[in-house]
Amino acid sequence: MNYMLNSIPSRTAKPRNSGFTMAMDKGLSLREVEDFIETSGDFIDIVKLGWATSFVTKKLKEKIEIYRAAGIPVYFGGTLFEAFVIRDQFEDYINLLNEYQLTFAEVSDGSITLDHDIKCKYIETLAKEVTVLSEVGSKDAAKIIPPYKWIDQMQKELNAGAWKVIGESREGGTVGLFRDSGEVRQGLVEEILTQVPEEKIIWEAPQKEQQVWFIKLLGSNVNLGNIAPNEIIPLETLRLGLRGDTFDFFLNK
Amino acid sequence: MNYMLNSIPSRTAKPRNSGFTMAMDKGLSLREVEDFIETSGDFIDIVKLGWATSFVTKKLKEKIEIYRAAGIPVYFGGTLFEAFVIRDQFEDYINLLNEYQLTFAEVSDGSITLDHDIKCKYIETLAKEVTVLSEVGSKDAAKIIPPYKWIDQMQKELNAGAWKVIGESREGGTVGLFRDSGEVRQGLVEEILTQVPEEKIIWEAPQKEQQVWFIKLLGSNVNLGNIAPNEIIPLETLRLGLRGDTFDFFLNK
Amino acid sequence: MNYMLNSIPSRTAKPRNSGFTMAMDKGLSLREVEDFIETSGDFIDIVKLGWATSFVTKKLKEKIEIYRAAGIPVYFGGTLFEAFVIRDQFEDYINLLNEYQLTFAEVSDGSITLDHDIKCKYIETLAKEVTVLSEVGSKDAAKIIPPYKWIDQMQKELNAGAWKVIGESREGGTVGLFRDSGEVRQGLVEEILTQVPEEKIIWEAPQKEQQVWFIKLLGSNVNLGNIAPNEIIPLETLRLGLRGDTFDFFLNK
Repeated sequence: MNYMLNSIPSRTAKPRNSGFTMAMDKGLSLREVEDFIETSGDFIDIVKLGWATSFVTKKLKEKIEIYRAAGIPVYFGGTLFEAFVIRDQFEDYINLLNEYQLTFAEVSDGSITLDHDIKCKYIETLAKEVTVLSEVGSKDAAKIIPPYKWIDQMQKELNAGAWKVIGESREGGTVGLFRDSGEVRQGLVEEILTQVPEEKIIWEAPQKEQQVWFIKLLGSNVNLGNIAPNEIIPLETLRLGLRGDTFDFFLNK
Repeated sequence: MNYMLNSIPSRTAKPRNSGFTMAMDKGLSLREVEDFIETSGDFIDIVKLGWATSFVTKKLKEKIEIYRAAGIPVYFGGTLFEAFVIRDQFEDYINLLNEYQLTFAEVSDGSITLDHDIKCKYIETLAKEVTVLSEVGSKDAAKIIPPYKWIDQMQKELNAGAWKVIGESREGGTVGLFRDSGEVRQGLVEEILTQVPEEKIIWEAPQKEQQVWFIKLLGSNVNLGNIAPNEIIPLETLRLGLRGDTFDFFLNK
Repeated sequence: MNYMLNSIPSRTAKPRNSGFTMAMDKGLSLREVEDFIETSGDFIDIVKLGWATSFVTKKLKEKIEIYRAAGIPVYFGGTLFEAFVIRDQFEDYINLLNEYQLTFAEVSDGSITLDHDIKCKYIETLAKEVTVLSEVGSKDAAKIIPPYKWIDQMQKELNAGAWKVIGESREGGTVGLFRDSGEVRQGLVEEILTQVPEEKIIWEAPQKEQQVWFIKLLGSNVNLGNIAPNEIIPLETLRLGLRGDTFDFFLNK
């Protein structure tokens, strides 16, 4: 920190188990990755190459290498896993992870229909090779999953070997955990938290109001994901009570 | 492509007549242009320097040269053409195109009132010098042009020598082809397509939902325009069925 | 300018007292700052490091130095002043300004409750050291300050030594001068202008429609603030009547 301010909420340090920030890279150039690391590297715990953007990303190996050299693991968005699975190319997917020496992978069923036992099998299989993030929730706004099912799926996926489970929201923050309007499905989140340990969940929360809501519910060190590169610094200030939205909240604690 | 996925929709290659993507540069620096070409050069067919931003752009010649060296033609937004015409400086406009050695120009009447015969004369005159893109539709949300007039104007402009016609939407995607809300004027688009060949039209579609709508209507190789630099990679994944929004659509074909 | 267009509204030149543009940097890297200066340096009069982002900004001294070398002063957002004051660390704040050799500072009460006389005392004290920008308006959408109070506070703050007063809107443009929807509180602005000289006010107006509204009310050389880096070039074209939104307006003058 550049100067001393009293009573700043304490933040976890890397490698973080909570207070974790997952950033979404949906097409940065190598130089932009360097810039991103310069400004925000300390505040990013992992980078997702959004959905299947890695398919068309130039200099993919170099990009992953730049992140890795800065101590930031990279993984491919769950949609890529699904694209391989739906084509019956799961073996190719495993090979791909090896080829790029990835240490994390995401298992999701946001765009495909996957029997939940089979999804858990994939988690189990992948967990032998890499650290697995598994995602719950549909990318289809019309598919509303009731809270008890979110909880059941999250528990089973953790049991199957997922390191953490991700609550789906998409890049925009308008499905899964959120209504079309971006508003949080508060009852859903609260019910999940009665059954699943907080540090095992990463909440996708791309919109500022969503981040604020989670910080007020769970504190500075909530795990948040799908953060755009130019919103990492702003998010860090929210976590520290140094932006209007959370300024009062932390002072009054 | 970085790896092999089966059943990916096939895309046209450069120089493209269809499956064309027009990007909008509204003020990138030289280094940002280099980065943009690194990540997205293969997916951009032409770059528009938005409206009259070229008036205040620093190092304009160098910028155009960087794009040109990457095989990407640049043109000035139609508003600049209109700014010259309304000031009775059309000769200066021709000289400007020559000075910057531009090979494309846009003729539009989004901000000025231009008798349609005169608009066609401008197209005819310019078409002797450069490849002309002509644009139909007003930037004024209150000016609703009925479908038969869109069709009539598009046909006349193509007859006058326009290479392709552009359907107006502005940078934001809220006029012309779209309602205030960004929703597509579906009946308008469908009626146009009964009379104007699809490959002769570039649809301005800056919002993701608009891009998805056109891809579902016309396939991977629809011509789209006004795409922001950081949305070129995401658009390419939409065209390939590798993002949630079009994932199902292509699988079910 | 890159070419000659007749009847372009005349713009003030640096150092500007009116026609002033305040840009908001909420986390640019050093290279991004260089790029920003390349494209937009002539059009930026001052840069605000948004709210308390400076707390977590890497290479803060180098960043400020790059701006300074380009003749662009930098200041810390008002929320940082408030963060020091609420912690009873005002002395530390003064030392901080000295340490970074800042020549501007902002005094605000957007997130804290500050007796107005005390706010004016802070302005008075700081005005002995640096040029003070003071801000009126709450960041809390629920706190509606009536026009007569805005005027009273602005006048007292100018009397206390503020160089200019800033009308609050936040980064998003949805509080203070604006309604939740981003719409301008027109009556408020008009009433303020009956009592406070136009050149003494900087209007925070991050959204394009807000910028257009102020330009139409007060002309090309209105003072505007909270402009995102990639919106500086677009704003300059609005001021010059070279974008659809203000194209007609200046031609008809």
